[in-house]
Amino acid sequence: MKRDKYIDNIDVEEALQKFLSKIDFKREIEKKAPWDSLDRITGDLISANFSSPNYNAAAMDGIAVLSKKTINARENSPLILKEKTDFLYVNTGNPLPKEYDSVIMIEDVVELDKGEVEIISPARPWQHVRPVGEDIIKGEPVLFANHKIRPQDIGALLSAGLMEIPIYKKPKVGIIPTGTEIVEDSKELSYGKIMDSNSRMFAAMVEKWGGEASRFSPTEDNYHKLSETIKKAVQENDIVVINAGSSTGTKDFTASIIGDMGEVLSHGVALKPGKPTILAVVQGKPVLGIPGYPVSAFISAETFLKPLIENYLLQKKQNRSKIKAVLSRSIPSSLKHREIVRVTLGFIDGKLIATPLSRGAGVSMSLVKADALLEIPRNYEGYQKGEEVEVTLLRPLEEIGEYLISIGSHDIVMDLIADEVNLSSTHTGSMGGVTALKRGQTHIAPVHILNEQNGVYNEFLLDKYFDDETVLIRGVEREQGLILPKGNPKNIFGISDLLKENIIFINRQRGAGTRILLDYLLKKDGISSSDITGYEREATTHMACATAVKSGSADVALGIKAAAQVMDLDFIPITFENYDFLVKKETLSDERMKSFLNFIRSQRFEDKIKNLGGYNARETGKLIFKGDIS
Amino acid sequence: MKRDKYIDNIDVEEALQKFLSKIDFKREIEKKAPWDSLDRITGDLISANFSSPNYNAAAMDGIAVLSKKTINARENSPLILKEKTDFLYVNTGNPLPKEYDSVIMIEDVVELDKGEVEIISPARPWQHVRPVGEDIIKGEPVLFANHKIRPQDIGALLSAGLMEIPIYKKPKVGIIPTGTEIVEDSKELSYGKIMDSNSRMFAAMVEKWGGEASRFSPTEDNYHKLSETIKKAVQENDIVVINAGSSTGTKDFTASIIGDMGEVLSHGVALKPGKPTILAVVQGKPVLGIPGYPVSAFISAETFLKPLIENYLLQKKQNRSKIKAVLSRSIPSSLKHREIVRVTLGFIDGKLIATPLSRGAGVSMSLVKADALLEIPRNYEGYQKGEEVEVTLLRPLEEIGEYLISIGSHDIVMDLIADEVNLSSTHTGSMGGVTALKRGQTHIAPVHILNEQNGVYNEFLLDKYFDDETVLIRGVEREQGLILPKGNPKNIFGISDLLKENIIFINRQRGAGTRILLDYLLKKDGISSSDITGYEREATTHMACATAVKSGSADVALGIKAAAQVMDLDFIPITFENYDFLVKKETLSDERMKSFLNFIRSQRFEDKIKNLGGYNARETGKLIFKGDIS
Repeated sequence: MKRDKYIDNIDVEEALQKFLSKIDFKREIEKKAPWDSLDRITGDLISANFSSPNYNAAAMDGIAVLSKKTINARENSPLILKEKTDFLYVNTGNPLPKEYDSVIMIEDVVELDKGEVEIISPARPWQHVRPVGEDIIKGEPVLFANHKIRPQDIGALLSAGLMEIPIYKKPKVGIIPTGTEIVEDSKELSYGKIMDSNSRMFAAMVEKWGGEASRFSPTEDNYHKLSETIKKAVQENDIVVINAGSSTGTKDFTASIIGDMGEVLSHGVALKPGKPTILAVVQGKPVLGIPGYPVSAFISAETFLKPLIENYLLQKKQNRSKIKAVLSRSIPSSLKHREIVRVTLGFIDGKLIATPLSRGAGVSMSLVKADALLEIPRNYEGYQKGEEVEVTLLRPLEEIGEYLISIGSHDIVMDLIADEVNLSSTHTGSMGGVTALKRGQTHIAPVHILNEQNGVYNEFLLDKYFDDETVLIRGVEREQGLILPKGNPKNIFGISDLLKENIIFINRQRGAGTRILLDYLLKKDGISSSDITGYEREATTHMACATAVKSGSADVALGIKAAAQVMDLDFIPITFENYDFLVKKETLSDERMKSFLNFIRSQRFEDKIKNLGGYNARETGKLIFKGDIS
Repeated sequence: MKRDKYIDNIDVEEALQKFLSKIDFKREIEKKAPWDSLDRITGDLISANFSSPNYNAAAMDGIAVLSKKTINARENSPLILKEKTDFLYVNTGNPLPKEYDSVIMIEDVVELDKGEVEIISPARPWQHVRPVGEDIIKGEPVLFANHKIRPQDIGALLSAGLMEIPIYKKPKVGIIPTGTEIVEDSKELSYGKIMDSNSRMFAAMVEKWGGEASRFSPTEDNYHKLSETIKKAVQENDIVVINAGSSTGTKDFTASIIGDMGEVLSHGVALKPGKPTILAVVQGKPVLGIPGYPVSAFISAETFLKPLIENYLLQKKQNRSKIKAVLSRSIPSSLKHREIVRVTLGFIDGKLIATPLSRGAGVSMSLVKADALLEIPRNYEGYQKGEEVEVTLLRPLEEIGEYLISIGSHDIVMDLIADEVNLSSTHTGSMGGVTALKRGQTHIAPVHILNEQNGVYNEFLLDKYFDDETVLIRGVEREQGLILPKGNPKNIFGISDLLKENIIFINRQRGAGTRILLDYLLKKDGISSSDITGYEREATTHMACATAVKSGSADVALGIKAAAQVMDLDFIPITFENYDFLVKKETLSDERMKSFLNFIRSQRFEDKIKNLGGYNARETGKLIFKGDIS
């Protein structure tokens, strides 16, 4: 099979404009009841069928009178009116009786006996009367064309007596997941298979944007079958999305199939993630080839599919809310492409801080964890830490303000806490946490670093890096040791066994407390790190290390017992260590911090970590100040 | 029937907090597929069923190799590898074959004949390999509880092998429209009847907020029937809304019925519009009595129903986007209540200008036309013109930026233009337009004011009020005259007939060109305005005047022929006048203004106004500068 080794790198805007200019949608109108038209787009000017109100109506609860009969009423000479002769009771909304021209509020009426009332001031003609058409006049426009219908519009349409209105049909978007390895039921998720997740994500995006998704079952990588499916999809839909198969693999047929059916306008755009996107036109309809990595898929759909649907519905581009934030870390980027970086956000001392997440195109969890997207334009070298940038929110700002930010070492207890307390954690290792706290970029810095001088964990950090305004909250004690495959097939019993031939190690990233512990242990035993296979291979969490061991890509890792237990692996204990939290004193009075402290000091928390195994909560929640350290 | 003449005036926040504190929702969880869970709320922590990927996968298209066999590859001494022996072709996503530990990108491989390839640098172990769990690790949390599910979350849930997830059931909201005058089909919209519009508006609001609306057919004002319906609604729903019947009319049963069934916490809140709101609890469930006027209904539901649904779904209060704008007019308000004012927005010279709309609680069109809501807190006397205020958007800001703002005289042609050009008009009369243009609060000021000295319309305004930077765009000539009931039953043939006994006139508001014309005509004939019945009764548009004549609340009005024709009324011509547009010169180069000019100069426009009758477009679109006037 011939393959395209290289794809283009066309500018995003240029590619999009060319794409849009080649398409002339055939929009259709349908008639629906207003109450079935929420969020739909009006297909024409809609004028009122009836005036509202369609009669002169009492605007207040009270009595209807003929105004000229009331002109002599005075405070010192009240006028007495007789029911049925001089007045009639009316409630708000009642038609004004024919013979009357004015309404007096019930609060201004003194009710006497025998159907008589007394008034002390005259009524102006037409006072407290809602005239015909006060709200809507028959024949006048209620909604103009190309308007997105809101709840209040539905109310006005009905008030105007409209039972059916013209709206644009939703654009139909055919979505074709491709790939022999793709399954749509988790029961079929055997080794080497991948769940079809993108097509369902696209369907939800299309629904949000006002389209109607029509999803196909996954199609295997077979030129003929794929070609038939695409043909069918183009026939039945206004827009077609083919997911995966757009890159340079030997089974990446998408571009050549579409090229045979219509015109490929561009293959490869200057966008990261999302580069191997295909923009094509088949029978006048837009066909999009979107790459398979989940983040690429999301970004490519946002960039090219959303404008198509907006164009179909004649809606202006609607930007998500943007906001300014300060970057906690530098993000270098290539001049070659526009890059979209996922960031978490947090309010620290009133400043909104943005922290970049994993930049891997394959990490769908980075989209889940992201609070916002940061766009680095093409021809930019990226942004510096401390720089103010504009980010696009993926979550309401109100919610973000509720979250406590944690940057630092990773432990499974952080997930456990996050299930009960609004906590957003980023894992950078202990030293990353220390730096972030010093810079005012986090509320909490989880740390576990051994002081080699005295064998005590973390307390020395207060002295070494912080002033009196910082405090250490005792977290948990946890067991560190070697994580090994079940049954320990390669007979690894201690650190020195890492030197053995055929043993592949997996390490934690630079700055992680576990890595500092390893280096300490190696030094103690006089072992050079360069003699350990895999020392350079880094994972950022205990669970990631345990997973590497579980899946056979590593034979051993240093990590916490809980990770070994969750993964059903063997564990050889080496030491107990303190996993603690550094915070600024002033943060202790923050309501969010109080919830955090309340929870970690609770019996519920202690029960939960005992359940995990390898932990104890002896002093959890105790505050250690700089002066306390001897 | 006993009635409550006076209702309470309880502070909004106080009433709401008391209401929320009395309710303890019984939330239920249901299981749904992720793809059926968009915008739903997770009912529990959701952890991964499978790791993703669940195997070590090629991260690039290329070849899989064993890294240690490649260490000797150099640029000046390439290494030749044999397929099946030394390498295997892999595509992105393929499982890494068991005997290999690394992937070389296809771009870095030179393909030779006979299944051989050449490489020029060694492969690092595990390079371009996506390890098991790179995205999601089995057992780790994918989503925490109380999270609103987005498209990207659906993708991640499926990647984690989750086919079913726990989500909160939607809160069921029973909605009961009440009132004997209420009909739900426009076929039944006879004299004295009103369309049920609020209940459908509420249903749409509930849907938007994440609840499930269950709407009842309108119930008549009958104590027993209403009582039975409310009982049923409370049984079947989590929240009940009763619309109308909450005020002080003789048929306003809502408060007493709810009081008999449960506890009325407050009846009457310090909110305008929306004061006669009832907050009650029946069988532990919240029951809301919401007033019937459409704007009151909307504001009351936003204020009290939305927080209930957010509370049920454990979601933080989500504020709509807010933005700062400058007020074009003063808005006095009472200290007694929080007032919500509807405003239109427009960008004039880069500044966002807010103009208040009708403050009538009965004008649902003010909600349709509003771009934003302005809240005037309790104990405030209102805001001054020119003051910067914060408003809550009802329409995306991007859309607002596309609109040309018009403030001034009203004519039906403005609706006709608005159907083709993005135009937002407010009707203040000609002089209101002149003032707004001088203050930089509008792009266009439509005017028709007669210069009594020379009988020429509008041109003198340039001299009298503006500098050289203002220009008059010729609009249309239109016929003004007397608007009369069909057949002219009271034999009105001229201005002097307004003095006849039993003739009720309806006037235009102060500052309207038509009123200035009337005053001119009265002066000419030596008639005193105080002798005309109805001179003080004001309407703000020609159509509103014509409607008053049509409905019999007035016998005659002065207005344009087109309004008489649309309403099928008689018309006696008095004069032709010029309806023109004042704009700043610099606005002429604005793209939105260009569309406006292009349209009014088009044949299509001329055809449309000829269709209306009473117009001609002789010089439409001609520009008149100050210097041009002789």
